[in-house]
Amino acid sequence: MTTAPQLKIAGIAGSLRKGSFNRAALKAAVELAPAGMTIEIVELGTLPLYNDDIRVEGYPPAVHAYRETIRAADGVLFATPEFNYSVSAPLKNAIDWGSRIPDPPYVGKATAIISASVSPVGGVRAQYHLRHMCVSLNCFCMNQPQVYIGDAAKKFDANLKLIDAGVREELIKFLAAFRDYVIRLQR
Amino acid sequence: MTTAPQLKIAGIAGSLRKGSFNRAALKAAVELAPAGMTIEIVELGTLPLYNDDIRVEGYPPAVHAYRETIRAADGVLFATPEFNYSVSAPLKNAIDWGSRIPDPPYVGKATAIISASVSPVGGVRAQYHLRHMCVSLNCFCMNQPQVYIGDAAKKFDANLKLIDAGVREELIKFLAAFRDYVIRLQR
Amino acid sequence: MTTAPQLKIAGIAGSLRKGSFNRAALKAAVELAPAGMTIEIVELGTLPLYNDDIRVEGYPPAVHAYRETIRAADGVLFATPEFNYSVSAPLKNAIDWGSRIPDPPYVGKATAIISASVSPVGGVRAQYHLRHMCVSLNCFCMNQPQVYIGDAAKKFDANLKLIDAGVREELIKFLAAFRDYVIRLQR
Amino acid sequence: MTTAPQLKIAGIAGSLRKGSFNRAALKAAVELAPAGMTIEIVELGTLPLYNDDIRVEGYPPAVHAYRETIRAADGVLFATPEFNYSVSAPLKNAIDWGSRIPDPPYVGKATAIISASVSPVGGVRAQYHLRHMCVSLNCFCMNQPQVYIGDAAKKFDANLKLIDAGVREELIKFLAAFRDYVIRLQR
Repeated sequence: MTTAPQLKIAGIAGSLRKGSFNRAALKAAVELAPAGMTIEIVELGTLPLYNDDIRVEGYPPAVHAYRETIRAADGVLFATPEFNYSVSAPLKNAIDWGSRIPDPPYVGKATAIISASVSPVGGVRAQYHLRHMCVSLNCFCMNQPQVYIGDAAKKFDANLKLIDAGVREELIKFLAAFRDYVIRLQR
Repeated sequence: MTTAPQLKIAGIAGSLRKGSFNRAALKAAVELAPAGMTIEIVELGTLPLYNDDIRVEGYPPAVHAYRETIRAADGVLFATPEFNYSVSAPLKNAIDWGSRIPDPPYVGKATAIISASVSPVGGVRAQYHLRHMCVSLNCFCMNQPQVYIGDAAKKFDANLKLIDAGVREELIKFLAAFRDYVIRLQR
Repeated sequence: MTTAPQLKIAGIAGSLRKGSFNRAALKAAVELAPAGMTIEIVELGTLPLYNDDIRVEGYPPAVHAYRETIRAADGVLFATPEFNYSVSAPLKNAIDWGSRIPDPPYVGKATAIISASVSPVGGVRAQYHLRHMCVSLNCFCMNQPQVYIGDAAKKFDANLKLIDAGVREELIKFLAAFRDYVIRLQR
Repeated sequence: MTTAPQLKIAGIAGSLRKGSFNRAALKAAVELAPAGMTIEIVELGTLPLYNDDIRVEGYPPAVHAYRETIRAADGVLFATPEFNYSVSAPLKNAIDWGSRIPDPPYVGKATAIISASVSPVGGVRAQYHLRHMCVSLNCFCMNQPQVYIGDAAKKFDANLKLIDAGVREELIKFLAAFRDYVIRLQR
């Protein structure tokens, strides 16, 4: 009797603050992941601000570890805030460290995006920019479905648990679609 | 007899590496600035990676100094590299620290963008993203003319001096147009 | 006793269908325009699909009339639907006809954007693309405030009258800000 | 003995003018297509300007034929000019007609983009917008390699034949990569 292999997804939250709704959304995704998929959250706060002189001297340990985590993953799930109509600096920083030679780890990887925001729009513009960066990373960013958690302050409780039933349902469908997408691209 | 006031422009280079062509382009702009305008380069490397928890506790001294430099300037000149089809993480970081309350210092400010890149395209996509961020900053980003220094390795010498006569001429015209733009928006 | 000159704004709705919410939003803007500003709606349906061979032979009468209307206006107000994350084809068509030599009529013009959509997001991505086109047109597109009429089917009645009090208030403020913006850029 | 099935690609040129470099680039692609792939050029000039009232009454014959051509194709190759930093109105028109229910024909389709322009930049911004539209179409747009034919007036002869050896080589590699991409997504 054989079992399907377990997919490992790296989860990246673009915000460093403790009360981040995007980190909270990623934790909800960890909990709601379908059978056959586990999501592990990657920390970005220890990565130094990108400087190519550092790269040339050799990736610092935190950067090396981050790159190897991405490399070992079957896919990457981004949870991005929207700052100034784009992704956050910590997320851009992680993308840039992850895009450099040798063997940039995002190449060919399946990726997907969720976003949470206190505004009603829910991060549409940040997802837009991030999708464009994914073209440069040469990864495969899932088109549909899309999850934008607007008015986030109403969707999470004081302990940052996702309590909105509609968003939970949306996220469950999104994650199942992402599992299928990852599998399809691995064939 | 009266003299026109001297315009002070803050120059921001998006790359932290020593041999950066964007820093070099900004230094060329300092040299080529028209009468009535001086450009001073702002350093971004000391700004911590954006974390809203830090902001809430109070802007760190380096962030505070950066914000006040922008506030005191008559305009801002960005020199942006293109990393993954967008601005660099250090530049995004500076934009995000500069966009927060109270009294975000970019509001209503005249801004302009140049970019240098070893690729022939010269940073078109980074300028695109940066212009969009400028809408969020609510500053006034000059439309035309535009300067894209492509194939940068051929345009600067080993000491990072801008030696390409055509680009120097282009930059002189660009800076004169920016001076007029700053003045127009101050009326 | 002198009176301030009356500002003439050309209103452009990107959708050709009769029941368009964007046309309806533009009609609401006509009604809600502040003292000192009148908005006249420009029709786009008679412009031929852009073909540079036609342009070279001479602008057709409908195109010529459209260009002169823009030229005579003190500013332009776009009401754009969002089709495939961008502006509609009729609106892109009008922009392209309006951007060509001699004397492209949008240059230096004050512009502003509203959008209506049955989706909750309300046209954020269409406005994003349109703002970028405005850089190419070399017009001045107002940054703030911004109006996105999401869930449009609930905001207009069966006769396409804007009945949502909150959106009406938002639009009144937006139009007053646009009037000030037009005046500021004319100084 | 079996043979691989022949892939049929629909080629779409965004410009209607006779001397279009994008049409010329598409013709070069027809000639340079690898074994196992044929490209047929789709005409866009007969599609009416998008109006949802027309769609509701039933797709006009030209629109219907266009949609069925896309549906029958194994992939779509876009050749886009850059007008006002975006795709042309005729191309946007084709995208919008192709995106509507029932059974929108682009869904799940493999697509790729080339662009030609007399400017050195070669259509980078048009490709940017088009990639974003592809997310909405829910098709799979190939990330890499990318072909930007800048300074197009020097790359084609007076009969609009692609004569630049470097670009021809680039296009051959691009088309071979696209064939592999189409096959991969059909598995």
